[in-house]
Amino acid sequence: MSVSVVSVAERAGVSVSTVSRALRGIPGIAESTRKRVQDAAEELGYVASPSASRLATGRTRTIAVVVPLLSKWFFAEVIAAAGRVLSREGYDVLLTELSTPALRAEFFASPRLHGRSDGALVVALQLAPEEFAALEAQGQAVALVGSERTGASSVQVEDRAGGLAATRHLVNLGHERIAFIGIQELPGSPLGGVPPAERLLGYRDALAGAGLPPDPELELGVENTVDDGVAAMASLLTRADPPTAVVAASDELAFGALSTLRGAGLDVPRDVSIVGYDNHELARAVGLTTIDHGVADQGRLAAEALVATLAGQPAAVGRLEPRLVVRGTTAPPRRLRAGSS
Amino acid sequence: MSVSVVSVAERAGVSVSTVSRALRGIPGIAESTRKRVQDAAEELGYVASPSASRLATGRTRTIAVVVPLLSKWFFAEVIAAAGRVLSREGYDVLLTELSTPALRAEFFASPRLHGRSDGALVVALQLAPEEFAALEAQGQAVALVGSERTGASSVQVEDRAGGLAATRHLVNLGHERIAFIGIQELPGSPLGGVPPAERLLGYRDALAGAGLPPDPELELGVENTVDDGVAAMASLLTRADPPTAVVAASDELAFGALSTLRGAGLDVPRDVSIVGYDNHELARAVGLTTIDHGVADQGRLAAEALVATLAGQPAAVGRLEPRLVVRGTTAPPRRLRAGSS
Repeated sequence: MSVSVVSVAERAGVSVSTVSRALRGIPGIAESTRKRVQDAAEELGYVASPSASRLATGRTRTIAVVVPLLSKWFFAEVIAAAGRVLSREGYDVLLTELSTPALRAEFFASPRLHGRSDGALVVALQLAPEEFAALEAQGQAVALVGSERTGASSVQVEDRAGGLAATRHLVNLGHERIAFIGIQELPGSPLGGVPPAERLLGYRDALAGAGLPPDPELELGVENTVDDGVAAMASLLTRADPPTAVVAASDELAFGALSTLRGAGLDVPRDVSIVGYDNHELARAVGLTTIDHGVADQGRLAAEALVATLAGQPAAVGRLEPRLVVRGTTAPPRRLRAGSS
Repeated sequence: MSVSVVSVAERAGVSVSTVSRALRGIPGIAESTRKRVQDAAEELGYVASPSASRLATGRTRTIAVVVPLLSKWFFAEVIAAAGRVLSREGYDVLLTELSTPALRAEFFASPRLHGRSDGALVVALQLAPEEFAALEAQGQAVALVGSERTGASSVQVEDRAGGLAATRHLVNLGHERIAFIGIQELPGSPLGGVPPAERLLGYRDALAGAGLPPDPELELGVENTVDDGVAAMASLLTRADPPTAVVAASDELAFGALSTLRGAGLDVPRDVSIVGYDNHELARAVGLTTIDHGVADQGRLAAEALVATLAGQPAAVGRLEPRLVVRGTTAPPRRLRAGSS
C-alpha cells in the first residue's frame, strides 16, 4: 500500500496542503517546516504525488478512456473498474463518448489527445486501421476492450463460448424451442458489434450440436434496451409455436423479457426459462440465470495492461472465459414435469 | 443542429482528416484543396472544432467532473447527461473519482486541475470552504450537484419533499406501519450525505402530519447497495409488529427489499407495499413505484450552468421538484381490503 500525503501531514504535524507545498518547493513555507515535512516523507517512504511529478517528467499522467456510450451499465462498469486502477497508479482519466458517427470521425481526424494523454483505453469500438494509426500518431499507447490488434494490449471475452454455454444449459434441461433475443446494430450505431454477433453464433452452435433445427422465427435482433426486451418477448408470444426458453444477449434485454412474461401472467421458469448475459449488478436481486463475462475484470485488466505498457512492458493479450451463473429463471420445460400441477 | 466536419468533407470531396488539417493550417495540403475546404466550410456555416481552437484561445476546453463513486447508477447517469452537454459544447471531460478520504484530501491539496480544466462539476460532495477555495485558486469555475454555495452554480433536489411524497402516498393508501430503509454514511464515506438525510426527514414529516408515532424499530440505516436492501428487509420481517409498507431511500435498496419479500413468499403489494427513490432505469421493468428526482436533469442542468458561466453568464441556482411515479408495488394494506381473498 502506498503512503498517502495524509500520513505525512500527520507525522509532520502540519496540514495536507502544507505538505503538498513543501514538497513541491512552493515559496512561503518556513524552512524548518519544509525540513520537518521532508523528514516525515522520507521516514514513511512517501512518493510524491504523480500530479506533482507530472510537470517534471513531461508526461501527462492521463489516460483517455474512449467509449461509444456512457449511460449503459456495461460501459459504466468498465470505466469504473479501469478508473480505479488508473487512479491508484496516479493517472487521471480523460473521458470521451463517441456516440455518433460524426463525433467518431471528428475525434479521430483531430489531434485531440496529442499532449493531453499518454495512452488510450478503447472500449467496444472496432477500430479501422486509420483510426488506430491516428492514435499512434498522437503518441498514444493503446489498450482495447472487446477487440484485438497486433501490437496493442487487449482484453476480449470468448463470447461465442458464452452464447454456447447459455443455450446448451437450456438444451440440457430438455428445451427444444429456444429463442434468441440478440443485439442488432442499427446503421450508424457506435457499438463495436463483434461480441453480440458471436453470442448468436454460439447459440446456433448449441442448437446444431443438439440436432435442433434453426428457426428464423425464433431469432430476434433489437436494440440493447429494457424496452426492446419487453417488445421482443411480446413478439415471441405471438408465434404459432412459442418458445419454452429464451437466451437474451444482455441482462437488460432479459429484464425486459421477464417483465413481459410476468405481465402476461406466465410463470418463470415454470412456463418459460430465461438466460441473460452480463451478470448485471441487479441480476442477483432479480434471480436471473445469466452468463458472467467479467465486465469489471475487462476494464481492470485493460487498464493494468496499458499502465504496464507505459512502464515499458510489452503489450498483453487477455481472453476471458465467460461462465454460467444459475439462479432462478431456468428449469426443465413443462412437458418434462408431468405430474407437476 | 451544428454542421459536422463530415458534411464539410463531403461537400469539398475530401477526407475528414484533410478538412481538419486544412482548417487548422497544417502544412502539406495543396492550396487549391485548402481553398475548396474553406469554401465548403463557409457555405455550410461550419464552426471549426473547439479542439482545434483550444490552442488559439489558451483555454483547456476541458471540464473536470468530480464524483465520489463511479460505479453507482446515480453517478453514471449524472456523468452521462453532463457529458452529453459538455461534448456538444466542445468540452472534454476529465473524470475524477474521490472514493476515499485520502484521495479527496490529496485531490484538493494538489493543483491537479490548474491549467488542465476550465471548470469543475462537483457531484454529491459537500465541499468544505477550503476545498472550494482550492478549486477557485486553480482558476476553476464551479458547478455543484447536490449542494449549494454562494457564487457557484448548483442543482439540488427538494429531497425532503421527495421523502414526504413517498411516505404520504402510503399514508393516504391507509398504511400505519411504514418503515424507512435509509442510506447511512459510514465514517470515511465519500458521499455527500445531505440528500439521504433529507429523505428521512421528509418521511418523519409525513408520519407526524398523519399523527402516526415514529418508531425507531422501523427506521433503518444501511449502505446503498442491493445486498443491504435484501438484509434490511429481512430484518424488518423479524419485528414483533412488521410494517405493511416500506419507503426505501434508493431504488437499489428497494430492489433488494423486493427480492427478500419474494423469497419469503410474500406478495407485493398485497402483503407489503414498497416505494423506491430514483426512478432507476430498471424501475419500470420491475414495476416499482418510486420517486423520480430527475437524475439525468441534474447532470444536464449543472453542465449547462457551468458552460454558461464560462461564457460570462452569472451563476445559476436550480432546484428540482421530485415527483411520485406510481407503478405496481403500492396498494392499500390488507386490512382495508376485507373481502379480498
